[in-house]
Amino acid sequence: MSAHVEPPQRSFASDNAAGAHPAVLDAVVAANEGHALAYGSDPWTAGVANAFSAMFDADVTTLLTFSGTGANVLALGAALGRGEAVVCTRWSHITADETGAPERVLGTKLIELPSIDGKITVDALASLDHLRGVQHHAQPGVLSLTQVTELGTVYTPDEIADLVEAAHSRGMRVHLDGARLANAAAALGGVDALRAMTVGAGVDVVTFGGTKNGGLGAEAVIILDPALAGAAPYLRKQFNQLASKMRFISAQFLALLKDDLWLELATRSNRMASRLYEATSDIPGVTHEGPPEANSLFPVLPAEAIEPLREWCFFWPWDLERNQVRWMTAWDTTEDDVNRFAAGVAATVGD
Amino acid sequence: MSAHVEPPQRSFASDNAAGAHPAVLDAVVAANEGHALAYGSDPWTAGVANAFSAMFDADVTTLLTFSGTGANVLALGAALGRGEAVVCTRWSHITADETGAPERVLGTKLIELPSIDGKITVDALASLDHLRGVQHHAQPGVLSLTQVTELGTVYTPDEIADLVEAAHSRGMRVHLDGARLANAAAALGGVDALRAMTVGAGVDVVTFGGTKNGGLGAEAVIILDPALAGAAPYLRKQFNQLASKMRFISAQFLALLKDDLWLELATRSNRMASRLYEATSDIPGVTHEGPPEANSLFPVLPAEAIEPLREWCFFWPWDLERNQVRWMTAWDTTEDDVNRFAAGVAATVGD
Amino acid sequence: MSAHVEPPQRSFASDNAAGAHPAVLDAVVAANEGHALAYGSDPWTAGVANAFSAMFDADVTTLLTFSGTGANVLALGAALGRGEAVVCTRWSHITADETGAPERVLGTKLIELPSIDGKITVDALASLDHLRGVQHHAQPGVLSLTQVTELGTVYTPDEIADLVEAAHSRGMRVHLDGARLANAAAALGGVDALRAMTVGAGVDVVTFGGTKNGGLGAEAVIILDPALAGAAPYLRKQFNQLASKMRFISAQFLALLKDDLWLELATRSNRMASRLYEATSDIPGVTHEGPPEANSLFPVLPAEAIEPLREWCFFWPWDLERNQVRWMTAWDTTEDDVNRFAAGVAATVGD
Amino acid sequence: MSAHVEPPQRSFASDNAAGAHPAVLDAVVAANEGHALAYGSDPWTAGVANAFSAMFDADVTTLLTFSGTGANVLALGAALGRGEAVVCTRWSHITADETGAPERVLGTKLIELPSIDGKITVDALASLDHLRGVQHHAQPGVLSLTQVTELGTVYTPDEIADLVEAAHSRGMRVHLDGARLANAAAALGGVDALRAMTVGAGVDVVTFGGTKNGGLGAEAVIILDPALAGAAPYLRKQFNQLASKMRFISAQFLALLKDDLWLELATRSNRMASRLYEATSDIPGVTHEGPPEANSLFPVLPAEAIEPLREWCFFWPWDLERNQVRWMTAWDTTEDDVNRFAAGVAATVGD
Repeated sequence: MSAHVEPPQRSFASDNAAGAHPAVLDAVVAANEGHALAYGSDPWTAGVANAFSAMFDADVTTLLTFSGTGANVLALGAALGRGEAVVCTRWSHITADETGAPERVLGTKLIELPSIDGKITVDALASLDHLRGVQHHAQPGVLSLTQVTELGTVYTPDEIADLVEAAHSRGMRVHLDGARLANAAAALGGVDALRAMTVGAGVDVVTFGGTKNGGLGAEAVIILDPALAGAAPYLRKQFNQLASKMRFISAQFLALLKDDLWLELATRSNRMASRLYEATSDIPGVTHEGPPEANSLFPVLPAEAIEPLREWCFFWPWDLERNQVRWMTAWDTTEDDVNRFAAGVAATVGD
Repeated sequence: MSAHVEPPQRSFASDNAAGAHPAVLDAVVAANEGHALAYGSDPWTAGVANAFSAMFDADVTTLLTFSGTGANVLALGAALGRGEAVVCTRWSHITADETGAPERVLGTKLIELPSIDGKITVDALASLDHLRGVQHHAQPGVLSLTQVTELGTVYTPDEIADLVEAAHSRGMRVHLDGARLANAAAALGGVDALRAMTVGAGVDVVTFGGTKNGGLGAEAVIILDPALAGAAPYLRKQFNQLASKMRFISAQFLALLKDDLWLELATRSNRMASRLYEATSDIPGVTHEGPPEANSLFPVLPAEAIEPLREWCFFWPWDLERNQVRWMTAWDTTEDDVNRFAAGVAATVGD
Repeated sequence: MSAHVEPPQRSFASDNAAGAHPAVLDAVVAANEGHALAYGSDPWTAGVANAFSAMFDADVTTLLTFSGTGANVLALGAALGRGEAVVCTRWSHITADETGAPERVLGTKLIELPSIDGKITVDALASLDHLRGVQHHAQPGVLSLTQVTELGTVYTPDEIADLVEAAHSRGMRVHLDGARLANAAAALGGVDALRAMTVGAGVDVVTFGGTKNGGLGAEAVIILDPALAGAAPYLRKQFNQLASKMRFISAQFLALLKDDLWLELATRSNRMASRLYEATSDIPGVTHEGPPEANSLFPVLPAEAIEPLREWCFFWPWDLERNQVRWMTAWDTTEDDVNRFAAGVAATVGD
Repeated sequence: MSAHVEPPQRSFASDNAAGAHPAVLDAVVAANEGHALAYGSDPWTAGVANAFSAMFDADVTTLLTFSGTGANVLALGAALGRGEAVVCTRWSHITADETGAPERVLGTKLIELPSIDGKITVDALASLDHLRGVQHHAQPGVLSLTQVTELGTVYTPDEIADLVEAAHSRGMRVHLDGARLANAAAALGGVDALRAMTVGAGVDVVTFGGTKNGGLGAEAVIILDPALAGAAPYLRKQFNQLASKMRFISAQFLALLKDDLWLELATRSNRMASRLYEATSDIPGVTHEGPPEANSLFPVLPAEAIEPLREWCFFWPWDLERNQVRWMTAWDTTEDDVNRFAAGVAATVGD
């Protein structure tokens, strides 16, 4: 048993178990100056809109939301045509972990594609072609990709561009669920990569996450196709995502976007995942699928080690039939956290 | 023109133009300590649940949400039966100012009752009895009352109790939209009044607002009828209202509920509205309907004075055909704000 | 008491109390010849599409449905943009008598305009202009007119054209709920009038009723704006309106459209209403608002006469506070029915 | 080529390509006698309600609908609790062939279980247990079984009873999609089997199809659990399934239920499928999975024979990657049809 190893200060449960970055909190406190018009008619929100356009190097439309589910539903709602369906993988957060919010709020069907690594391929998309033009099937209208995927993998910009082309050639639009888009950008080289896999690849609408990456609670829907922007403000309120004191959400993004803090935090989180991989890959009994692409690992552990380890320092099981678990780093994970956790793993697995 | 009068520091536009109370911000900052499980499995959220049960003196179910619209939609969703409609007034926020969120998210019809003062009467409710049992009409299932009403009036606990009885006798449930319930409690005598007009009156589900009353962004759905509680957590996420870093919403309520800060702030806001009434009711050309019941005034002004005044210190028009505007105080309105504003009104109207 | 007067064979309850015209039944029986591909891929359905294009003298898209509510919901769904609301009168069937189907199936808000005579005016539409561009309000997207209105009045083609212009200038589309469009066409002069008040006036989508006018159960959505046609087949099935053995619905319309039988039946129904008006307008105690515009009358009767009359020959009350009832003729109402009914009214009211 | 073989009079495309049984048409014609109150307040509809209660030997609630999709959506809507999901197979008509109607109209998620033979097993249902009680997942609320399944297989009453027990023990309700329930009853022994696999097995709500089995267009939702019946009439109209001249739907069922005509027709259809199996199973190149359980066959044919055969006598492909097609018999399929079709198959495959 690893009881004699001191657990790390921060668990590897999820990046949303982390708190907010001090700069984010400072910005929120600083935004609390007197009165400001509600619902986004304030200077902080105007500043965020400009900052996102600069970051994407495009004249994007930015709508801030409360939550990732809210952002995804809004993004899909802005992109869906009449009666259309959304195509995603069976792992997609929108179908697996959002309590049916898209079906409920949008009245849309989600068509799940099989996927081994969390990614969609052009061939998988093409496998739905038999549905097209047949009145008994909701027509695939939006392709939703998750970047970083729910399985910790990262699409290359070329892969996304190919999927966008395949979707557009079928009259579909493309949504990028980027709850962890910062981690993908960090993995692929930074701001240029961010632009390449969104604007450059031809994506139509992006969910850009702030909460998991140092925020208190702040997500953004970035509309790249101007044709989808008109109805979005109304949909935002209709879907319960319009903040009255919006300046406090905007302030979070202003802090995260300033001097690319978002990228620095994601880079750190990714690096700690690599560090954790290195620190545990030689432990007998711990099997990794390979080095992490972003900030999560899905190791297989000896069955009897899982529960003691989780009691010692909480993390989530993934696929217990395979004895697979998930370890996730956050923006605030430290080398010391990694070292202690690895020590605990070694002590427990080695028991 | 009133250009020579210095405008107040804080406008009378809306209570959601105000910032957060320092104690709320302090609590948020203090909650930012290391990792905590997401989605409400944290000690702050457990504490809020206990605090609300204590405040209502009942074993209530508390679900925190991001926004008032979100809270209302969740409360209605928890209370509505299959295929049922919601009954409200034509002034109700849920029908007039939520961009069709209840219709969209819940698929429900809102039946609007006429009302002069923003209140519903038992007779008005009875006027819908011809709909009951007829398959061509969505059956009235939930009666939604707003307290403080959108017209600034306040139901007495007896009025609410009578409406609840009328609704329950028709098989309906009762929702109290309390975005400004604190102001109603302050107007009616405090915590005892809060209990009397909710638990005591037999209300089934309450939206309790925190945002307008010193919060950053924090609303609560308080379920008083245990039979409605079971599905509510799922509906919350389905309606995009589940916060991942919920501790930062919970911390706000912990600060507001501590030592009844919520009541102190609402009392101050109400008192400033009374003060504003007194300071302006003798100005020739300013016509009030009477003293304020809570924290808003709906004065009639000389037509030509409205725009200059709004440019000088912003507020919202209400019914411009009648030259009626709305002045609203907030938790942070000061005597000095009132005095300056009244001076500006006198200078402008007297021009 | 009128007990000694023999009641008519057919009541004046509603035109949907009537059966089917023999030619319609014959056509259904004749269509029962062997196998035919389901879901509209049959020659009868192709024939109906051609017949409607000829009748409207335009290349319209025709989608047959089961019911008037289904047709209205489909027409609105084809015309509504993202997040938009429908504008109608408080009398409109879609808001008053469809059990909330539009709200439920479309997730849309219905904005009710006041109206004395069941018609919408350009001024009434303009009264909603304050909603436009404000994110707190669902944007008016479709104007729904009922022709013949629920109050028995008939828009002139010019009135409709003016409303269409007012709607289009606001970016809205226009739906004509024509459950009794045949009666309106009959009142206004026939096929030319039908064209004038639809294609000519610039209407975007029409519900054309067959059931009340001699059908078994057959309604049609006629899409005049080709831009709205693409998604409609999918929406039809999504809204439960796609018939598998569609030939039996198509056959009904083929019979009704052949040699303008639909117009002949509606003309007869209207004429019988005029005849009933003439036969009862001199009876002391019976007050008509004026001669009927189509096939319904809304007379005011002595309070004590209403129930005995309804027991003698059923009809529906309309506004019992005013002692107002509704008498409606059908395609099969005969002179003898009118004479007997008028005799019974005279005998009862004169008691 | 089989061009020299005369194709059968009736194809094997689908049972909804067949017309109506003469007795059904006669009943519709006979129901066209004068006026009758609309929306089901007529003696034919009352008679159908009694007939279904007698047939199920239980005090069931019957709601007639226009279409199978409409009936399924209504049945699910009556059975679903707040925010719940439906569990079905990936083959289920409700998820594969209804254009997303359940998602759109009900706002519900459909959770698809894998299945080889179109049936759900208790183990497959249990595989969803990890979703239960977790707020990130819509809670499984209704288990929807199709009988006869979309793959032509038939559940035994015991299999259904076991699934009902498994579902009820999890707080779920059970829906039986019986578009071809008559064929299942015929396969399992008639009325006793019908009762055993519905009332006896504890099913909560049944869709009972009439259209495919000799009707013009007539489906029924049979509610076995009285607790689900209250809201159903309102849902029926809300979902666009309330017929105004309902007597013409009721008359169809009166004809089908009289002297168990429904069972006679289904028995004939099943027998013709067996006959077709026998007539083709010895043809070299035709591979059957086994004898039919009801009225469909899913043979594998030589790739090059499929298109010529379909051009000669239309049927639907099923899984062309496997060269699998579907042959379906109907209530009116004759021995001669079978013999001719088998001759054509032999001639074509043998080419």
